[in-house]
Amino acid sequence: MARKFKITVPATSANIGPGFDVVGLSLSLQLTLDVSVPGQEGEDRTPPILRYNGEGAAEVPLNPYKNLTTRVALYVLRCNDISSFPSGVEIDVNNEIPFGRGLGSSGAAVIAGVLLGNELGQLGLPQERLLDFALMVERHPDNVTAALIGGFVGSYLRELDQAATEAASVPLSEVLPEYPPDVDENWGLSPPPPPEGIGHFVRFRWSPEIKAVAIIPRFELSTAKAREVLPAQYDRKDVIFNLQRLAVLTTALGQSPPDPGLIYEAMKDRMHQPYRKALIPGLPEVTSKITPSTHPGLLGICLSGAGPTILALATSGFDRIAEDARTIFLQRGVEIDWQILKVSGASSVVQVS
Amino acid sequence: MARKFKITVPATSANIGPGFDVVGLSLSLQLTLDVSVPGQEGEDRTPPILRYNGEGAAEVPLNPYKNLTTRVALYVLRCNDISSFPSGVEIDVNNEIPFGRGLGSSGAAVIAGVLLGNELGQLGLPQERLLDFALMVERHPDNVTAALIGGFVGSYLRELDQAATEAASVPLSEVLPEYPPDVDENWGLSPPPPPEGIGHFVRFRWSPEIKAVAIIPRFELSTAKAREVLPAQYDRKDVIFNLQRLAVLTTALGQSPPDPGLIYEAMKDRMHQPYRKALIPGLPEVTSKITPSTHPGLLGICLSGAGPTILALATSGFDRIAEDARTIFLQRGVEIDWQILKVSGASSVVQVS
Repeated sequence: MARKFKITVPATSANIGPGFDVVGLSLSLQLTLDVSVPGQEGEDRTPPILRYNGEGAAEVPLNPYKNLTTRVALYVLRCNDISSFPSGVEIDVNNEIPFGRGLGSSGAAVIAGVLLGNELGQLGLPQERLLDFALMVERHPDNVTAALIGGFVGSYLRELDQAATEAASVPLSEVLPEYPPDVDENWGLSPPPPPEGIGHFVRFRWSPEIKAVAIIPRFELSTAKAREVLPAQYDRKDVIFNLQRLAVLTTALGQSPPDPGLIYEAMKDRMHQPYRKALIPGLPEVTSKITPSTHPGLLGICLSGAGPTILALATSGFDRIAEDARTIFLQRGVEIDWQILKVSGASSVVQVS
Repeated sequence: MARKFKITVPATSANIGPGFDVVGLSLSLQLTLDVSVPGQEGEDRTPPILRYNGEGAAEVPLNPYKNLTTRVALYVLRCNDISSFPSGVEIDVNNEIPFGRGLGSSGAAVIAGVLLGNELGQLGLPQERLLDFALMVERHPDNVTAALIGGFVGSYLRELDQAATEAASVPLSEVLPEYPPDVDENWGLSPPPPPEGIGHFVRFRWSPEIKAVAIIPRFELSTAKAREVLPAQYDRKDVIFNLQRLAVLTTALGQSPPDPGLIYEAMKDRMHQPYRKALIPGLPEVTSKITPSTHPGLLGICLSGAGPTILALATSGFDRIAEDARTIFLQRGVEIDWQILKVSGASSVVQVS
């Protein structure tokens, strides 16, 4: 039987100050896939046809063996004994999440792929298992967990036994191989399946008054490059600095009304932001000149993920925060765009027909 | 006018696994002070008379210029322009909190002192200011904040401006001087007052099903000694290990029913427990042999503060957890006591007459 379904995955902001590799927040920008699967498969199998609109349309590969989302979907299918896509699948992608800006575009593509594989194969995998697949690809839980679960989310990677540790440490190139140009459906049939229960998570409360101003510089910063600048070790006092703030922040952002006197300081970080300042001209000025006393309504300000986007959480005064950030960035020669975003719900898969 | 009041301060357990120097949990063992202040002061001022029963009675000094609680009270009074204790004060102490076991006996003595000073001077200080005084003495916020506020609490120390940083860094010997044997009330009159707003905190939810089994070895371990074994630096992966678990744990312990599959792993730690194993014979065996699968009802197990007490959080099976821990400790030649504790409320001051 022919069927159509729509997959929706939100943008996410990771870290939120002290929560490096821990917390994520889903935001009201979406990656959507409108998928149709024909009812009867003919003799000549045809691979999925991808069409892509919106952010990243100029650069994203449309070959289903090169596109991240369809490669992840194929990984999920093959780990569940389905060797290839159904024939004749068509996928219309619409993407609102800018690439390489710290808003979880890659995590959203991975979650979309996991949901696509689950749906194409009619696998009925539970949420925890979907997360295992995503974590085999993305390895850091912050963005993918928030994108899958929705809301303000914290997660940890479980200590695995030795066999599972080895299974979870296979190189990404084996999980998602680079398919050769002349790939056929019999190539790379048995990828390494994820161990069970890699990631565990909770959803924190989120005060409904709080919105996020995403201040988005017009340049990309790769997560890999932004990780290279981080130190291998941290002083104990800096670790305690982050642990103390993270513990308070996850609860403070759920209190109504939110307290800027508590939150602003709790959104400070010593794990990644100080080391990433050199990569983002204007970051130190924006975070030091835009404060709750200069900008009433502001709760806190931080790098979104690895940046370069800056996220300001606020209950009012959104436009002024954004425009003053624009002025500061312009003085450093950086143009920005900005958006006022709400916290979104979970990823969804809806049957259209 | 003569008056009597009763101060009650709970025991506390700090860290709860990953929350090193961050979280504290108030427990149903109490330090109580029954205080009487005579109505009229005579010509010849008499210093407070201390009587002490319960845990620590054999070792605690009863000279009010040597006793920690009364010294802290005098510090609070003097920072508020009251140079000495009222004349003729009598204090009956009853203490249920064992000394040097990781159950917050010192933090409780400090909070009792802050509340005593506030009450003797009828200062009416707000809770935030009381915490400032406690933090000038104790420096780590975990135990004192939980003892003052009650419940399951997380706190951070604010980044202070330079003047405040200097004010908050004066040596403890100036905050609480060692009074000479021939001390009179004019000695050491002007201690350094705390800066404003050193500590900030939130109270997390706590699932009412959860009780704490305190497994208390019959030896003392000084916090100073237990801090000496900690490294100055931590690997990034170990920092992330703790950050991830701490973020999940503070919310997971408030969910009803609590989920051992989430909590047990979230109570693991790489900041302090691995380094303190050598100081506490039996710790590795107890934490590895008592698990939710061997002991249904167990949620998680950790060192209480700096130890040597081990805290097991559980919803049932309390006696078996405790007795099996006793057996393991006995194999290492360590005798223990144990108690099943509830989470307590805040410190209180009640006027008796």
